[in-house]
Amino acid sequence: MSEPSLLKQLENTWHGTIPVSAFMGIRPLTFDGTEFRVGAPLAPNINLHQTMFAGSIYTLCTLCGWGMLWLQQQRAGVSGDIVLAQAEIRYRAPVTANPGELIEARVSWPGVSLTPLSEGRRVKVRLEVELWSHGLCCASFLGVYVSQPKQEPTLS
Amino acid sequence: MSEPSLLKQLENTWHGTIPVSAFMGIRPLTFDGTEFRVGAPLAPNINLHQTMFAGSIYTLCTLCGWGMLWLQQQRAGVSGDIVLAQAEIRYRAPVTANPGELIEARVSWPGVSLTPLSEGRRVKVRLEVELWSHGLCCASFLGVYVSQPKQEPTLS
Repeated sequence: MSEPSLLKQLENTWHGTIPVSAFMGIRPLTFDGTEFRVGAPLAPNINLHQTMFAGSIYTLCTLCGWGMLWLQQQRAGVSGDIVLAQAEIRYRAPVTANPGELIEARVSWPGVSLTPLSEGRRVKVRLEVELWSHGLCCASFLGVYVSQPKQEPTLS
Repeated sequence: MSEPSLLKQLENTWHGTIPVSAFMGIRPLTFDGTEFRVGAPLAPNINLHQTMFAGSIYTLCTLCGWGMLWLQQQRAGVSGDIVLAQAEIRYRAPVTANPGELIEARVSWPGVSLTPLSEGRRVKVRLEVELWSHGLCCASFLGVYVSQPKQEPTLS
């Protein structure tokens, strides 16, 4: 599947199964095999300081990391149920954006092997996601994701 | 102001200034001066595993901690702009709920003095929030909140 089709499939997965992601206007932007970017507008994600809500910043980063692992699984031809096990985030600067402008989360793939998934074993991946706005890194996120091999239905 | 009125004012502040909080159905439940509980239904916060979305779990915990500091400021008669500086979260178990049932975030006040705010100095508070569902602690959140004395407008 081509990269644009993969990104569209990922967006449909998010919006179809995670209502908050649709409300926040989160969507995959670019993926070159190594770096993945996800965007969201400010308006639905505003807080009482008229900047981006801390919860929205975290959620955007979370899905950026989740999406990276999903994309890498697609490319490797393996499947697994991805969950976030733990995470930490540091807020460095208030996040603002002009109308129509997207706030971006960015993550690079650390080159973890996904082969264990095809052998029935789980994979654990640490991903560092940065949140960028106006040329400034405004938040740093570190998430530990776990992908479990999908359980095949068994006959009882 | 009575506790119920305070909780209503807090809910109005959240829903009026943070659209995501209204979408998620987040609302203050109880506050006894020491412990504060915040709830949200599962439906708007679901993920593709039919459990609570990791981003929603984090956001519920974040607002629980934020609300605790806001409530303590109201009781102490001091004011300050509260922001989350950093946080970490560990997901312990999938979060589920029956229809109509609320998932709860709970936080206890560690007894930090808020007097510095009335002297023009900021306050930093570490709050541990737990997410409970079906009698089980499903996530542990640690947030560092900072409250800055409100800037009085100055004549130029």
